[in-house]
Amino acid sequence: MPRPDVPDLVERARRGEARAVARLISLVENGMDGAGDAATADLRAVAAALAPHTGRAHVVGLTGPPGVGKSTSTSVLVGALRARGRRVGVLAVDPSSPFSGGALLGDRVRMGEHATDEGVFIRSMATRGHLGGLAWATPQALRVLDAAGCDVVLVETVGVGQSEVEVVALADTTVVLLAPGMGDGVQAAKAGILEIADVFVVNKADRDGAAQTVRDLRHMMSLDGDERGWERPVVPTVAARAEGVEELVAALDAHRDWMDAGGERRRRRLARARSEIQAITLERVRARIGDVSGADGLATLAERVVDGELDPYGAADELAGTVVAPQH
Amino acid sequence: MPRPDVPDLVERARRGEARAVARLISLVENGMDGAGDAATADLRAVAAALAPHTGRAHVVGLTGPPGVGKSTSTSVLVGALRARGRRVGVLAVDPSSPFSGGALLGDRVRMGEHATDEGVFIRSMATRGHLGGLAWATPQALRVLDAAGCDVVLVETVGVGQSEVEVVALADTTVVLLAPGMGDGVQAAKAGILEIADVFVVNKADRDGAAQTVRDLRHMMSLDGDERGWERPVVPTVAARAEGVEELVAALDAHRDWMDAGGERRRRRLARARSEIQAITLERVRARIGDVSGADGLATLAERVVDGELDPYGAADELAGTVVAPQH
Repeated sequence: MPRPDVPDLVERARRGEARAVARLISLVENGMDGAGDAATADLRAVAAALAPHTGRAHVVGLTGPPGVGKSTSTSVLVGALRARGRRVGVLAVDPSSPFSGGALLGDRVRMGEHATDEGVFIRSMATRGHLGGLAWATPQALRVLDAAGCDVVLVETVGVGQSEVEVVALADTTVVLLAPGMGDGVQAAKAGILEIADVFVVNKADRDGAAQTVRDLRHMMSLDGDERGWERPVVPTVAARAEGVEELVAALDAHRDWMDAGGERRRRRLARARSEIQAITLERVRARIGDVSGADGLATLAERVVDGELDPYGAADELAGTVVAPQH
Repeated sequence: MPRPDVPDLVERARRGEARAVARLISLVENGMDGAGDAATADLRAVAAALAPHTGRAHVVGLTGPPGVGKSTSTSVLVGALRARGRRVGVLAVDPSSPFSGGALLGDRVRMGEHATDEGVFIRSMATRGHLGGLAWATPQALRVLDAAGCDVVLVETVGVGQSEVEVVALADTTVVLLAPGMGDGVQAAKAGILEIADVFVVNKADRDGAAQTVRDLRHMMSLDGDERGWERPVVPTVAARAEGVEELVAALDAHRDWMDAGGERRRRRLARARSEIQAITLERVRARIGDVSGADGLATLAERVVDGELDPYGAADELAGTVVAPQH
């Protein structure tokens, strides 16, 4: 396969060409999979070419327990944003599924009404059997959509659990969806999901108990409002009938404006950049450790630990002497 | 609190003093929690003092879906090993619970019959709110029990999921427990749990369908026997009535002897030592990254990434120049 012309792809992506966007995300994914030196070089070329064109998009993460209506909510949100003339990117992330293709297909079908809209980019990502791979690829995929001129990028997590919280950490604004009668309060509190929310949605608001769930949440939010400087809104919706979606868009915009006014968006982005740079650096050290051989190589040190000559901390001291730069 | 006399504690632990064993494990846990420089120094002192006295114990991991009878099986296994005059350590590990104390209490009650036996050490460990902390503390706790003269250390995982697989990676011999009528085949295959087993137990073997489950597993195992050089045995048990436990002990001994004969135990321990040394070294690099400041410090590089002057990979290049030793 010929090496891709990355600057040309980025140029075409910036003009909104869907195929160039898709190709760039694939390059990013392949580079993350450790598919060889060429793939890594492509990934680096993509990251470098994107850098000057990123930082505009409002990244919105949507999360919540299974069955709460995340997919439907994402879809109606796309419609409402398009109606305002905004370009929208959607990343549907499934940390629990190793099947990228399946998720992609399901997503295309589900997002059928937006599939032919040139102002919408939809991409599904899965772990592809490479644990942790998703955490690496998602921020780069976000950058591609950002550079492609998306005003808003929605990151929807399909799976559940810890990885969900990690993925949401990529967003400027995190929306937590709940529904009445799911025992949400306890479950959500347990998963630490209330803590990460900037905006709450109580979906299926036409069901019994919805008003109570909304009242409970609003009461909880009013208690911690001053601490954050942002009283987190609770938006009742019926996504299946597109009810409450205008209010949700307004809440997202309000949060973005609040973040920009006080410098909070920049603070969040700096924190994200720090973790990303650190993770890449550590990955590089891991590779260096694999390269060291001889008496201070990992294999020899492991033998000495197994033979009881050295403890793992002493072994790490010796290894660090080779791979870690001395402190000035 | 005065600094502990680590060599004295290790000496007393080697003589089988339960309080010294418990204190050493606590020192290890505190050091892992990042409870300050003194705690880290204690951890290092403990690891160094233990090194010459480790490597004897046969480490057996027990895992399987909730409700399969892991706790009961562990308890009767302790009884059978004690009847043979062996010293036994038990680490009950719950990756999903942040509550160390609760698990401890439950365990003490459950293991009541062994609680006063001087040849048995029982310890419960939980994450104590520190994600990943358990993965760090467990191998050190194993070393304490090993040095204390345990012939066998049983590591029982209470939680479920990925962390279970990681914890089991600490064992010389991994026992996977299944029970009839739990839809185990599919579930276990999905979780990759069949792959990690060295010995299978079909517990509750007096229930309907047990014979079929045993036959199915034996057939599967006969298919891949040659590949590993070890045909993985399937042992039916009724742990609640201590049935099949002698056969299980025999299977564990046979696996240990097979590993020792062909060098497999050493290979597994070398692999474990390698990951442990690598993890400690990376943690050290992480700390170094936190110390670097100025133009090539993480904070400044993050600003340049957010401002689009640099991509995260270019930033990692600059950071690596400071924290990673140049390659010779």
